[in-house]
Amino acid sequence: MSLVIIGTVAFDAIETPFGKTDKIVGGAASYASLAASYFYDRVGIVAVVGDDFPQKDIHSFEKHGIDVKGIQVKHGEKSFFWAGKYHNDMNSRDTVTTDLNVLEFFDPIIPDSYQDCEFLLLGNLTPAIQQTTIKRLRNRPKLIVMDTMNFWMDTAMDSLLETIRMVDVLTINDSEARQLSGEYSLVKAAHKILKMGPTYVIIKKGEHGALLFHENHIFSAPGLPLADVFDPTGAGDTFAGGFIGYLAKVGAINFNNMRNAIIYGSALASFCVEAFGTEKIKNLSDFDIAERVQKFVQLSSFVID
Amino acid sequence: MSLVIIGTVAFDAIETPFGKTDKIVGGAASYASLAASYFYDRVGIVAVVGDDFPQKDIHSFEKHGIDVKGIQVKHGEKSFFWAGKYHNDMNSRDTVTTDLNVLEFFDPIIPDSYQDCEFLLLGNLTPAIQQTTIKRLRNRPKLIVMDTMNFWMDTAMDSLLETIRMVDVLTINDSEARQLSGEYSLVKAAHKILKMGPTYVIIKKGEHGALLFHENHIFSAPGLPLADVFDPTGAGDTFAGGFIGYLAKVGAINFNNMRNAIIYGSALASFCVEAFGTEKIKNLSDFDIAERVQKFVQLSSFVID
Repeated sequence: MSLVIIGTVAFDAIETPFGKTDKIVGGAASYASLAASYFYDRVGIVAVVGDDFPQKDIHSFEKHGIDVKGIQVKHGEKSFFWAGKYHNDMNSRDTVTTDLNVLEFFDPIIPDSYQDCEFLLLGNLTPAIQQTTIKRLRNRPKLIVMDTMNFWMDTAMDSLLETIRMVDVLTINDSEARQLSGEYSLVKAAHKILKMGPTYVIIKKGEHGALLFHENHIFSAPGLPLADVFDPTGAGDTFAGGFIGYLAKVGAINFNNMRNAIIYGSALASFCVEAFGTEKIKNLSDFDIAERVQKFVQLSSFVID
Repeated sequence: MSLVIIGTVAFDAIETPFGKTDKIVGGAASYASLAASYFYDRVGIVAVVGDDFPQKDIHSFEKHGIDVKGIQVKHGEKSFFWAGKYHNDMNSRDTVTTDLNVLEFFDPIIPDSYQDCEFLLLGNLTPAIQQTTIKRLRNRPKLIVMDTMNFWMDTAMDSLLETIRMVDVLTINDSEARQLSGEYSLVKAAHKILKMGPTYVIIKKGEHGALLFHENHIFSAPGLPLADVFDPTGAGDTFAGGFIGYLAKVGAINFNNMRNAIIYGSALASFCVEAFGTEKIKNLSDFDIAERVQKFVQLSSFVID
């Protein structure tokens, strides 16, 4: 396995102004692995589910060429469940239910065939588990990308900082970057975070796109303006999966490849929000993705004489 | 005169977390005309001041090649004065004082030599005065750009809508676009505004850049990430002045020239916020501007194979 993605594979129940779902497949590793699978065919998941998680849904990962050996199934236990309700502006949401279930004692097991991985995505999880995953790999991957959120800043800051020190790329949203750094300016925030360990920081700004910081370089990726955002759940995970999937495909880690990786990640995320859950990102063609990426090109290009 | 700019020429007193000023020169027409003067040498102002407005400050417009025949001086009266205080995030501010003074009965006089103007910028003012200005021109300019703000939506909506119907380009910030259209999605908001009359709508998003909408085309310009925003006053006016100044220079009105005009306008605005008032934009070189525009190129370019 060359790209390993650790994160939740879970159930979500989502309510937006456009409708509501029963329990559907969600979780960071679900979104991220599906997104990555469009670019790279050696993707493996490390996760835990209960025996309530349907075999057919695990099989649908396999149909995308995703290796599921790293998904532990805990018999007699239930899968992680999250229910949330989005406000009318779709930018804020309330958590209605969080049932940790199998996640409470999640101890990640790395299958032998994953040990040679070159690319590792640490999807949003407790920093302790993210860290354990790194330590359980015999060799350090060429690139470790970590996603996190404000919840861990509030509850596990020391462990979070320790884990951030071990990774190459941190993806984080703008308000979280401000919280983590104590700086309002995103430039100052990013430079403080770069001093914490990572060599690249990606600040996600939702509808306003994303900023990539590395040394003194900055890349600004636009957000694709959308008439309707149907369900924002998983957009950040999809972005991270598309990002690392593209880098795994091209292989070389440099600022220009990172620029493109952000555009591909953004393109995948723009599909994600067009339907509930993983519905849209489960059924894309290469043509869909190429066409969407061209929209980003048209959207942001200009030529100064 | 080929580019006429109507707006306030006034005094501001500004307080930010970085310091405070006494009365300094401000006003939409001051910022916009200075910005436009870097691209185009036939710029004229239509405005009104009291006899408290120093001759040396009027002369400093002339040093930039700006025609000041359209600035009426009202003897025995005082210039418009605004005092404001920015909060720590620099994104919100409180108005401390607004003394309309000469602005209360401002009746714009168009000098004969301005009558042939091809480009007209209606800086933020009451829509009634913006409209009067259009009507007092013997021929309709080739391009009319209008800037406005939420205050007129709250107090003069009918007159605002009537004026919007008469212009080619409306520049407006994101929250104002949402207020004017009643739509949260900026795509939907822009398309509603396009139905109100203008053929181009520019939505300004502050640190997140700007979006240009025209028919089904969208251009997204990045905001230049800045470590320090010293004083945001006048950034929108500077943007509008740089935008129309660049278009007056290149002459042809089309989507590609508009893209570049937005980049040049954004570059000028990025200088504006680096110092109090007009201090920074009064003293730029062509090299400064070219260098800043190159930063926008580096910031946003990517190459998809």
